Amino acid sequence: MTGPRFTPLVESLPATVPFTGPETLERRRGRAFAARLGANESLFGPSPKAVAAMADAAAGTWMYGDPDLQDLRTALAAHHGISPAQVMPGEGIDGLLGLIVRMTIGPGDAVVTSDGAYPTFNFHVAGFGGALHKVPYRGHHEDPQALLDRAQSTAAKLVYLSNPDNPMGSHHPAAVIEAMIDSLPDGTLLVLDEAYIDLAPEGTAPCVAPDDPRVIRMRTFSKGYGLAGLRVGYAMGAEDVIRSFDKVRNHFGLGRIAQAGALAALADQDWLAQVRAQVVTARATIATVARDNGLTPLPSATNFVTIDCGRDGDFARRLLAELLARDIFLRMPGVAPLDRCIRVSCGTPADLAAFAKALPQALTAAKG
Amino acid sequence: MTGPRFTPLVESLPATVPFTGPETLERRRGRAFAARLGANESLFGPSPKAVAAMADAAAGTWMYGDPDLQDLRTALAAHHGISPAQVMPGEGIDGLLGLIVRMTIGPGDAVVTSDGAYPTFNFHVAGFGGALHKVPYRGHHEDPQALLDRAQSTAAKLVYLSNPDNPMGSHHPAAVIEAMIDSLPDGTLLVLDEAYIDLAPEGTAPCVAPDDPRVIRMRTFSKGYGLAGLRVGYAMGAEDVIRSFDKVRNHFGLGRIAQAGALAALADQDWLAQVRAQVVTARATIATVARDNGLTPLPSATNFVTIDCGRDGDFARRLLAELLARDIFLRMPGVAPLDRCIRVSCGTPADLAAFAKALPQALTAAKG
Repeated sequence: MTGPRFTPLVESLPATVPFTGPETLERRRGRAFAARLGANESLFGPSPKAVAAMADAAAGTWMYGDPDLQDLRTALAAHHGISPAQVMPGEGIDGLLGLIVRMTIGPGDAVVTSDGAYPTFNFHVAGFGGALHKVPYRGHHEDPQALLDRAQSTAAKLVYLSNPDNPMGSHHPAAVIEAMIDSLPDGTLLVLDEAYIDLAPEGTAPCVAPDDPRVIRMRTFSKGYGLAGLRVGYAMGAEDVIRSFDKVRNHFGLGRIAQAGALAALADQDWLAQVRAQVVTARATIATVARDNGLTPLPSATNFVTIDCGRDGDFARRLLAELLARDIFLRMPGVAPLDRCIRVSCGTPADLAAFAKALPQALTAAKG
Repeated sequence: MTGPRFTPLVESLPATVPFTGPETLERRRGRAFAARLGANESLFGPSPKAVAAMADAAAGTWMYGDPDLQDLRTALAAHHGISPAQVMPGEGIDGLLGLIVRMTIGPGDAVVTSDGAYPTFNFHVAGFGGALHKVPYRGHHEDPQALLDRAQSTAAKLVYLSNPDNPMGSHHPAAVIEAMIDSLPDGTLLVLDEAYIDLAPEGTAPCVAPDDPRVIRMRTFSKGYGLAGLRVGYAMGAEDVIRSFDKVRNHFGLGRIAQAGALAALADQDWLAQVRAQVVTARATIATVARDNGLTPLPSATNFVTIDCGRDGDFARRLLAELLARDIFLRMPGVAPLDRCIRVSCGTPADLAAFAKALPQALTAAKG
């Protein structure tokens, strides 16, 4: 009896789960975390109106969700001042990134990103056989000029930039991104991941004509809106690019509760505003805790603060392990030299107090 | 300004939404349906315990769902008497079919299905450039021997069979499927879509060794469990085949509510049993209504009844349009000669009364 004949590309891929979920870590440890501050989730939660809408939608899950996503597309279009044909919701930015890569990248096609940027994008590029070219960060910023230069020299079909940046929390002002778009090589699509834009300072989102075919923007309900576990993101771009998702997407992939929750969350901008305020407060608290312990907090335009621990990756990894042992779940950048840092989600005062309590002991243990 | 460079394959694909959702039809008509009997949904709804679990999970959606899906995989494995490593949940059977096709099919690779079987499978095969070979139905059954013969002659990598069958509602007993598996050409994987198995007579599900690499079975919470709008299906197969999903899947694709709802639905087998009983009653009612109107109901092992209207596809399409005009939402097979039929979901007595009331007038109009 023989098994299936996989494609040569799939035969060559590793079977992997890109992130170890906190649930898996808890199972291994046999006990729950005191503070879940590692997954860039929003500990301030979703809008109570979104929670109510999801609960209300539960009994109606015997019906498929609208495959045209019309209500959600219409609401998103109104929110952004674009046309419904210029926006496509999907199963998180992760799912949309997979589709964008699938639509453009074949074996050997060049893709450019920053070394240490979002691993799931890289997972998709590898999954379609793309040739991934990485440029270093410049300090704790992604480097637009280096990305452009590499896109030019490799004739890249895609260049990925997250603004604000994960995992470093930094951001570029709108003008830098606008200049980058104007300098893109012909035929290079900028995949602009704006997952954290709702938490960024005014003036971070570039002004892009809605029908500009050179860029596709990715947004999400996972971060500011606090709906990571609902899996709703959306892409905005030129109508032809957006329409092409209908060639390949899982049309019923966004279920009824997902559509209802996202709609209600979008309608509650007051909630988003107060989350933003809590994030600003939490960033300051995390920065103070870091400084009090002799560490360097990096400026953040996101719902997490990246802390430079001032030594190498091995030290930061030891510190992370010591924090885990003290029931604090954090993550850290995976690639040198960014891995000198650890990354702390903005949490409630109780979450951050638990972090502040554990950090001095964990530092002592990591140094010892 | 130039746009993205799509792959030649994607350039060649049509942008399409494979099914027009009832919501879209309602928007076009400007009024709601009286009976939503066209989408093979379960009008008996999901378990109230699943509804409660989903509502309870809503407030926790700020957390990502477990990417390892451990609780759900463990529960499914216990339910089926297999190992968690032999089952992989995903974003509906649709999503899982897409991944199976992606993992095995490259441009020109042969795939065999029945002419008129599940269009979304065909969508995925086209989406990865596969060469789709179709064999005719034999009466209202898919034809295992014809599928096998074509798989042999084309050296197909995949052969698709749904048992029970959509859109005809027919089924083969287990022994036929078991014999088919034993006769598969070397290196042909049977994609056995068992979406409706929970509604089928005892003795429909074949006995397959859990580590048999020749077949992958697809199950869903969309039909018997009444959770079409939640988007949870699962694949069962040999460990190597199941592990390969980790090479390509959207690891966070199953959100927190989806995992919680599916777990609770699986635990409430009493609910499934009473749905099954209601489906049996509804099938009999639909058959009676069909016969009373001079039409021929086909035997059904699913939660719908396919009705042979005794003329050609144009007549059945007219009848469907006349029913739509009378606020009854139905669908029909898309391909001749199956398109002599219309397809009616098992509904509540009120749903079926609305259908029974509209059918005579619609028939008169369609004939006129």
